[in-house]
Amino acid sequence: MPKLDFDIITLGHGSGGLLTNKLLDSGVFHLFDNEHLQQRHDGAMLTLEGKTAFTTDSFVISPIFFPDSNIGELAVNGTVNDLAMCGAIPQYLSLSFILEEGLKMTEFWEILVSIKSAAEQANIQIVTGDTKVVERGKGDKIFINTTGIGQLHAKADIAPSNVQPGDKIIVSDSIATHGVAIMSVREGLEFESELKSDTRGLSHMVSELLDTFGVDIHLLKDPTRGGVATVLNEIARDRNLGIEILQKDLPLQNEVSALCEILGLDPLYVANEGIFIAVVKDAISEKVVEKLQSMEYGANASIIGDVTENHPKQVVLKSAIGGRRIVNMLAGEQLPRIC
Amino acid sequence: MPKLDFDIITLGHGSGGLLTNKLLDSGVFHLFDNEHLQQRHDGAMLTLEGKTAFTTDSFVISPIFFPDSNIGELAVNGTVNDLAMCGAIPQYLSLSFILEEGLKMTEFWEILVSIKSAAEQANIQIVTGDTKVVERGKGDKIFINTTGIGQLHAKADIAPSNVQPGDKIIVSDSIATHGVAIMSVREGLEFESELKSDTRGLSHMVSELLDTFGVDIHLLKDPTRGGVATVLNEIARDRNLGIEILQKDLPLQNEVSALCEILGLDPLYVANEGIFIAVVKDAISEKVVEKLQSMEYGANASIIGDVTENHPKQVVLKSAIGGRRIVNMLAGEQLPRIC
Repeated sequence: MPKLDFDIITLGHGSGGLLTNKLLDSGVFHLFDNEHLQQRHDGAMLTLEGKTAFTTDSFVISPIFFPDSNIGELAVNGTVNDLAMCGAIPQYLSLSFILEEGLKMTEFWEILVSIKSAAEQANIQIVTGDTKVVERGKGDKIFINTTGIGQLHAKADIAPSNVQPGDKIIVSDSIATHGVAIMSVREGLEFESELKSDTRGLSHMVSELLDTFGVDIHLLKDPTRGGVATVLNEIARDRNLGIEILQKDLPLQNEVSALCEILGLDPLYVANEGIFIAVVKDAISEKVVEKLQSMEYGANASIIGDVTENHPKQVVLKSAIGGRRIVNMLAGEQLPRIC
Repeated sequence: MPKLDFDIITLGHGSGGLLTNKLLDSGVFHLFDNEHLQQRHDGAMLTLEGKTAFTTDSFVISPIFFPDSNIGELAVNGTVNDLAMCGAIPQYLSLSFILEEGLKMTEFWEILVSIKSAAEQANIQIVTGDTKVVERGKGDKIFINTTGIGQLHAKADIAPSNVQPGDKIIVSDSIATHGVAIMSVREGLEFESELKSDTRGLSHMVSELLDTFGVDIHLLKDPTRGGVATVLNEIARDRNLGIEILQKDLPLQNEVSALCEILGLDPLYVANEGIFIAVVKDAISEKVVEKLQSMEYGANASIIGDVTENHPKQVVLKSAIGGRRIVNMLAGEQLPRIC
């Protein structure tokens, strides 16, 4: 961390004046140095080619630090993954902070370092930003908005409208890990568990899949807030088709399953940050799973179900013992501020 | 306002599940309907040509409503204006909300309507977004991030590095209006004053200037937080040149001047939302001012000073009676949460 004249964030750091400039010079510009930021203008000038994906997310997770990660890494990975879900290669990122007066500079610095590392891993460049400060009690330490730009992969044709009856539904790795890891920290269970959030950038994985399978990948969605159940319901609703999933095929770590019982959570509704749902042509589905399983973040990839013309707009879960139940979209709020 | 099942924002509206979908269907998608939002995907797919400007801002102004305007209009205009300052024509906007539990739906709706109206005036399309909700006491009613994309004007070459000694500094209209209007509301003076924030989109004005004067417009900056003094200091610092301004030439409404005295504010440091600073080639400066004065938002445009090789990195104010003083960048915080 560079030597700074201040230990905590004050309202002056959001003034747009001297203190804002000091904070930017010693922190943000120092860390994320590139030709766009060096311009020090109100925005970045970019040269883009082909079709461009554009996506935004604000991150308000509490707590802001959790085992091995923090809100900064999450904020980069979250938007990188939304670009990947559009079939795009991440290129440029904007970064906007709302800081609460009193945030420790050491904490802010740790978050900035995580942002840098996550951005480097995803090969996305931070080119423009903003910093605001609100009074104590009017925010909660730090909120981060990231907005991303990416170039559409040459072979991608990803859209809800491409989903067809007979398509297979694949999940790229074990479900419910992020939400359960965060809840464990909130409930003070983190010392009894080794569980970590699954936050990670998925763009390299998606890019490899698109290289190999191209337009046979019909839809990609990351089941963050609302979990797998909500994403599947959105697909069924938007395409006016049914979805059937098999409970036994849902990949779930033993520890996550046990913690879900302790915490009273249904893993289908728990947020994920490092997996995606792929809806693919039946003929390639086994090969997609094989490919995913060969990758670092896809060890537990599985086909979990298929798209059907039966029961349009409904998601049906078949249990291990043959029972069937309708899985609705998340109602109410299970885990506030999970991302 | 559409009929809704709820009067206030609850944590469930940020769940990503059923309530989030209801809020989006009845509010956002209803109001901002366009082909990109209809895709209902994690991001928008855009076809962009030429050089692209990319800029972000989060808005945390308090109070969220002020005479004739609100945080929604401000959030659109602010990012539209940052695009304009890059010499770009606004095209696409992302919109991300952090709502505090308990926000009234009627207030949220009023803000959404203002966003729509401001976006239409600037001819910018809202194509992707996000909504998060934090618990009571962890936010302050509503924070908004807008991130914009625009196409560089064919004749624009705007960059701090283009500023030359001898260039003239022009301000497009009266200064200090926004900050003083907001402070009047906070101090309960708004009923004695007719003063309104100057928030407005500047992209049409800038576009006309670039049509006529092209590359002779060297730099554009909007003096928001930190005011005119801070922006001039940034220019002087970044180009290692001096700036001289004449106090008598600073356009200032009588009412703003009077309220600055009452509130103890120096108008040079007060935030603006509807004016810009243009640094232009000496030879065209009079014509630029004439052109600005013919426009709706430029009635009080003036040349306020020039760029000099003397006293590099310093901004010097010459008073009406011949005195000279150095104008520094804003130190500390004069008006927290002014945008």
